[in-house]
Amino acid sequence: MFSTYLADPDILRHCGPEAIIRNMLAFEGALATVQGQLGIIPSAAASTIADTVTRLTITPESLTAGTLQNGVPTLPLLAQVREALPESVRGELHVGATSQDVLDTAQVLAIRSVMPVLADRINEVLASLNQLTLHYGNVPMMGRTRTQQAQPITFGQKVLSWRNPLVRHLERLDQLKPRVLVVQLGGAVGNLAAFGEKGEAVARALAAELNLNYATPWHTERDGLAEFTNWLALLTGTLGKLGQDILLMGQTEVGEVVENVNGGGKSSAMPHKNNPVLSEALVMLARQNAQFAAIQLQSMVHGNERDATAWMLEWDNLPRMMSNAGTSLRHALSITQTMGVKGFRT
Amino acid sequence: MFSTYLADPDILRHCGPEAIIRNMLAFEGALATVQGQLGIIPSAAASTIADTVTRLTITPESLTAGTLQNGVPTLPLLAQVREALPESVRGELHVGATSQDVLDTAQVLAIRSVMPVLADRINEVLASLNQLTLHYGNVPMMGRTRTQQAQPITFGQKVLSWRNPLVRHLERLDQLKPRVLVVQLGGAVGNLAAFGEKGEAVARALAAELNLNYATPWHTERDGLAEFTNWLALLTGTLGKLGQDILLMGQTEVGEVVENVNGGGKSSAMPHKNNPVLSEALVMLARQNAQFAAIQLQSMVHGNERDATAWMLEWDNLPRMMSNAGTSLRHALSITQTMGVKGFRT
Amino acid sequence: MFSTYLADPDILRHCGPEAIIRNMLAFEGALATVQGQLGIIPSAAASTIADTVTRLTITPESLTAGTLQNGVPTLPLLAQVREALPESVRGELHVGATSQDVLDTAQVLAIRSVMPVLADRINEVLASLNQLTLHYGNVPMMGRTRTQQAQPITFGQKVLSWRNPLVRHLERLDQLKPRVLVVQLGGAVGNLAAFGEKGEAVARALAAELNLNYATPWHTERDGLAEFTNWLALLTGTLGKLGQDILLMGQTEVGEVVENVNGGGKSSAMPHKNNPVLSEALVMLARQNAQFAAIQLQSMVHGNERDATAWMLEWDNLPRMMSNAGTSLRHALSITQTMGVKGFRT
Amino acid sequence: MFSTYLADPDILRHCGPEAIIRNMLAFEGALATVQGQLGIIPSAAASTIADTVTRLTITPESLTAGTLQNGVPTLPLLAQVREALPESVRGELHVGATSQDVLDTAQVLAIRSVMPVLADRINEVLASLNQLTLHYGNVPMMGRTRTQQAQPITFGQKVLSWRNPLVRHLERLDQLKPRVLVVQLGGAVGNLAAFGEKGEAVARALAAELNLNYATPWHTERDGLAEFTNWLALLTGTLGKLGQDILLMGQTEVGEVVENVNGGGKSSAMPHKNNPVLSEALVMLARQNAQFAAIQLQSMVHGNERDATAWMLEWDNLPRMMSNAGTSLRHALSITQTMGVKGFRT
Repeated sequence: MFSTYLADPDILRHCGPEAIIRNMLAFEGALATVQGQLGIIPSAAASTIADTVTRLTITPESLTAGTLQNGVPTLPLLAQVREALPESVRGELHVGATSQDVLDTAQVLAIRSVMPVLADRINEVLASLNQLTLHYGNVPMMGRTRTQQAQPITFGQKVLSWRNPLVRHLERLDQLKPRVLVVQLGGAVGNLAAFGEKGEAVARALAAELNLNYATPWHTERDGLAEFTNWLALLTGTLGKLGQDILLMGQTEVGEVVENVNGGGKSSAMPHKNNPVLSEALVMLARQNAQFAAIQLQSMVHGNERDATAWMLEWDNLPRMMSNAGTSLRHALSITQTMGVKGFRT
Repeated sequence: MFSTYLADPDILRHCGPEAIIRNMLAFEGALATVQGQLGIIPSAAASTIADTVTRLTITPESLTAGTLQNGVPTLPLLAQVREALPESVRGELHVGATSQDVLDTAQVLAIRSVMPVLADRINEVLASLNQLTLHYGNVPMMGRTRTQQAQPITFGQKVLSWRNPLVRHLERLDQLKPRVLVVQLGGAVGNLAAFGEKGEAVARALAAELNLNYATPWHTERDGLAEFTNWLALLTGTLGKLGQDILLMGQTEVGEVVENVNGGGKSSAMPHKNNPVLSEALVMLARQNAQFAAIQLQSMVHGNERDATAWMLEWDNLPRMMSNAGTSLRHALSITQTMGVKGFRT
Repeated sequence: MFSTYLADPDILRHCGPEAIIRNMLAFEGALATVQGQLGIIPSAAASTIADTVTRLTITPESLTAGTLQNGVPTLPLLAQVREALPESVRGELHVGATSQDVLDTAQVLAIRSVMPVLADRINEVLASLNQLTLHYGNVPMMGRTRTQQAQPITFGQKVLSWRNPLVRHLERLDQLKPRVLVVQLGGAVGNLAAFGEKGEAVARALAAELNLNYATPWHTERDGLAEFTNWLALLTGTLGKLGQDILLMGQTEVGEVVENVNGGGKSSAMPHKNNPVLSEALVMLARQNAQFAAIQLQSMVHGNERDATAWMLEWDNLPRMMSNAGTSLRHALSITQTMGVKGFRT
Repeated sequence: MFSTYLADPDILRHCGPEAIIRNMLAFEGALATVQGQLGIIPSAAASTIADTVTRLTITPESLTAGTLQNGVPTLPLLAQVREALPESVRGELHVGATSQDVLDTAQVLAIRSVMPVLADRINEVLASLNQLTLHYGNVPMMGRTRTQQAQPITFGQKVLSWRNPLVRHLERLDQLKPRVLVVQLGGAVGNLAAFGEKGEAVARALAAELNLNYATPWHTERDGLAEFTNWLALLTGTLGKLGQDILLMGQTEVGEVVENVNGGGKSSAMPHKNNPVLSEALVMLARQNAQFAAIQLQSMVHGNERDATAWMLEWDNLPRMMSNAGTSLRHALSITQTMGVKGFRT
C-alpha cells in the first residue's frame, strides 16, 4: 500500500528481482557470445545460449528454494537455463565464471539503468526550481536560525539552498560513474584462472559486449558500490532538507508556503486538514537512506576472496536505496510544481 | 527470490500489508462494537459494521493511490468500508478515532501474533541446543581468543554461550510484553475529546474487546515499539554470534563443525564446495537488524501531537525486523538440527 | 569546549578512563582478597595486593604505549601494580584471570555507579514535570498533527507525553539491572579452568566482594551491555521528543513556551536572539545515541571465545552513551525548571 | 589510554579543540584584514585585530561555560578577543559575520590540514604494499570463498585487492577537495546582507586570504562535509578489509601470515599469545566510522537558515572520523611493514 508513497515502481522496474534476473541472463548470454568469439566455446553453442537466454523468462519465485539451499540465486537460475538448452550445449554455459560475477554484474547493470532516470529527475527538479525562482524569487520570507526569527530573506535564497547541492550531485555522479559501471568477471577466486592467458581478453570483451567499463576483478573491493550508495544518501539528504523547509514554512502559524495548492493529505478525524504528506516522506526517506548507507559501509569489511556475510548486506540495500532516491525526486518534483508561495506576512 | 533465505513468509503473514489491513478492519469492528455497547452509536449500526469488516477483503494495491494522496492508508480503507455499508450506517464508522489509532493498534496486533511464533522458535532452538549438549557436550574444542588458539574447551561451553542469552531474551520478552501490547485510542490529538466523559471507558472496552492492555493514548510516546525492536536486535545479535561461531569453527582449516552434514550450499564454479549459507545469513541479519534498530530509535524524536516524518520510519521497519528475527530463528533451528560436530583434531 | 554542553563531567567521573582504571585496580584487589580467603593464594599476599591497589594511582597516559602494544590496557596496568608489589607477592596477582575479566567488570562497576545518578535525575525531571503540571496543567495549547493546527489541548497533556515514558524507563531499569550488574570472571577462555573445582566459588565470592550479581562467564554474551545501551537510547529518545516539542512550541510564530525565561542562547550576529540551546542539544543527543546504540548492537556478533573487533566497539561507546544520557537529563531538568509557559494565543 | 591505539594524536593536533580555536581566531583575523583592505573597517583596526588574534591563546576550558550558555563557542571566544583589543577597535571585530561562518570555516581549515596527512599516509601504505608484492607477490596462498578453501591464489592477488581501492580513494579525494575546501561567509541568515554591495567581494577576498575556494554561503548545504565523511568511511572500510584478511590468514590453523614478525599483542593470561591487535583495530575502526558516517548523513536534514539540532551532530563527528582514518592508516602501514608472509602449507 506504500508502493508509490514510500517506494518507486519505475525505479524498481530497473533494479527489482525481475530486473536482476533479466540482467543475470544477459550476463550469461554476453559471456557465451564473447567466449564464442574468442574460441573458448564453440560459436554455435554461443549463439544457442545467447538466443535462449533472451527468450527465457525466469520468475523470482522459481528461484526461492534454490536460493535458500545455496545462499545465492545463481545455481537455480543456471539450472533453468541448462534445462532450456540442448544437452550438448549445457556444458558451454557460464564457463569460467562464478556466482558473484553474475550477480555483481547484474547489480551494476541495474544501477546503470537507474542512473539516467535519477539524473533526469534531478534535472526536472532543477528546472522546476528555476521556475519557482522566476515567479517567486523576490517574495519576502523570514530567515530563521535555531528556530527563531532572525532577519528577512527572499524565497529565492531558499530555492538556491535546495538547488546548489543538486547541481553538485550531478557533478559527483559524473565523477563516480566510471568507477561504478564496471564489469565483474573474476571466476571462482577472482583471478580469472579458468581462462588461462585469455582472462583479461574475456573480461574486456565482456565489458564491451555489455557496454560497461573494464575492471580487474573486484569481488572483494566494494568501494565502488558504497560510493554510489553514499551518493544516493547525499541526494536524499538534500531532498530531506527541502522537505523539512516546506514543513517548517508550511506550519499553520507560519504559512509562508503550502505544499500543494490543490489540497494535500486529508485526515480521517479532521476534514479541514491539508497535510504536507510529500514533504514528510522526503524527511523520512532521507533518514532511512542515511541508515541504509551505513549498512553498505558495513559490508566493505569483506573477508578473504568472498564473504557472504558482507556481500548479502548489499543485495536488497541497493534497490531500496535507489527506490528511496527515486521516490524522493518524484515527490520533490511534485512539490515544486504544485506548491503555493505566500511569503512572510508581518 | 530471497523470500525464504533472507525473509520469513510465516512471520510476514502475521505482520505484512495484508495482516495490517485485516487488523485495521478488526480495529474498526471492535470500536463499533464497544461504541454500540456504550451507547455512542446505535447497537444495530455497530453489529452491521462489525459484520461488514469481517466479511470485507481489501487488497494493499487498492489502497496505494489513496495512501500516496493522504500519507496514510486509513482514509482509502475507510472509504472502501463505507462503500460496503448501508448509507445510514456510514456515519457510525470510526467515530472519534484517528488514523494513528487504527494503524498503531494494527501494528500492535501484528506484533502480538508474531511474539508467540518467535517465543516458540526460541524454545525450539533451546531444545535443539540441549540435544547438542546431550550428544556432544564433552567433545573437545579449541578455545580461541583474538583469532589465536588459546586453551582447550568443550563444545558444551560453546552451546552454553548461545543458550544463555536466548533464555534471557525470553525473560525480557515477558517483561516488555505488557508495555508493548497496548491499545491505541486517542482521537484527533490524543485526548479522546470526541468521547467526552466516556473517553477512558471506550478505550478500556476497546482494549478488552481486542485482548490488549489498556493504556492512555501514546501517539507520541514510541518507547514501547522501540523497546520491542531493540529486543528483536538483541535476539538477532545473539543468533549472529551463533552463526559467526559456526562459520569460524567450520572453516576448512578448522573443521570442528560442519553446518549441515547433509551438504550445504553449492557453488556455481566449484562443485566440491559445502558452504555454510545459513550461518552466513545469521550474521548478515544480525548486522542489518542492528541498523534497523537505529532507524526505530531515530523515530522516537516525534514532534508535537503527530509527526509523520518520525512515525513513517516505523512502518516497514517493524515487519522487516520481525521477519529478520523469525528468519534467524528458523535458520538457527535448522543449523542446530543438522550440524556435524567433529571436535578439535590435534 | 563542549564538555558541559554536549557531555557530562559528573557522569564521566564515574565511567571515564580514570574511573575504569580505579575499577580495574579494585577488581584485582577483590580477586586477591577472595583468593586469600579461599586459600588459592597466601592470605598475607592477598592483603598486600589489596592494600597496594587502593594506594596506587595509575594515569591513563601511563597505559597508552602498553595498550597500543597489546591491544588492551590490562597488561601495562598489571605491570605497574607488580612493580609496586614486593617481588615475592607479584606472582599472586591476577591469578587465573584474563584481561576481559578485569575490563568487563570495570565497565560494569562504572555502569553501576552511573545508574543511580541517572535514576535520580529521572526522578528530578519527573518532579519538575509535576510542578509544571501543577502550575500550568490547564494552560490551553494547540494540538498540532503533521505540522498543522488540529484541535486544542492543554499543556498538561504535553507534559504527560514526556512523563509517561520516563516512568516506564525507571521500570525498565529495575528489570534490566540484575542482568547487567554481574561480575565477569572466566579466565583465559571463559571456563574458569585455572581454578579447578573452585571456579564457581571464586566467581561467587568475587561477586559478593564487589557487590555484584554472580553470573557464569559472559565473555562472548554481550546482550546485557547492549540491553543497557538500548535503554540509554530509549531514555535520550524520550528527552529528544521533549526537546523537539520545546523547539516547535517555542518558535517565534508559535510562542506557546520559551525555553528559558531568564534568556537563553545569544547570537554573535543578532543580540535580540533567545535561542533554545538546551532543547537543541536534547534532539542532537537523541540522534547521536540512536546511532551509538547500533554500534553496540553490531558488537554482539562476537566470534569464538574473544573477539576484539567486536569487543573494542564497546569501549568508548559505553561511556559516551552514558554521558549523553546524563547530559540530556541535566538539560531536561534545567529546561523544565526555567521554561516559560505562555499558552496558545488565538 | 586508547589515545594511540584507537585514536591519532597527530590528526587530532590538526582538528581537535585547540586547532578549531586557532582556526576560529585565524578566521577573525583574516576577516578583519580583508575588511580593512575593502574599506569596511579602518585598516588600522584591521591590523590590530590581525595582530591580536595571532598572539592570543585561548583554551577550550575557558570557552566551556559560554558554550553551554549560548550553544556555540563563538560568543565566549569573541568576548576574549575583544578583551584583548583596545576599546576603540572592539566594534570592528567579526563585522557582518555569524557564528556559523567562524565555526564552519574553522572546521574546513582543519579538514584542509588533515587531508595531506591522510594522502601522505595512503601513499606510504601503497609504497609498503608494493614492497610486499615485490618480495612476496608469488607466494602461494589459498583462495577462500564463503569461509571454505576454494582454489589457490597468490599473495600478490591479496595485496592487489587492498591496493586498488586506495588508489581510487586518492582519485576521489582529488575530486571532492574543491567542493569541501570552501570558505563559509554568509552572515546572520546566509545572504551577506550586512555587507550590502560588497558581500561577494568580502567572501572572495576572505577565501583568497585563507587559501580556500570561494563559495556562496552554504550554512544549510551540508553535502560537502557529508561527502568528505563518506570518503573517510570508504577509506576505513578498505583498511577494515585489509585487517579482516590479516586476521583470517593469521589464525593459528591457517598461518599464512603473521601480523608482526617481531611479536604482537601479549595476553595477561597466556604468555604464548601473539595477538594481531592492529588488524583488530582496523576492523573496529571501519565499523565505527560506518556508523559515524550515518550520523553525518542524518545532519543533512537541516531546517531553515540554521538548525543546530542537525549542525551539532557534525561537531565532534568530523574530528573523530578523521582520527579514525588516520589511526587506520598508521596501523595499516605498521602491519604492512612488519608482517610475516608464510604462504599456504599443504
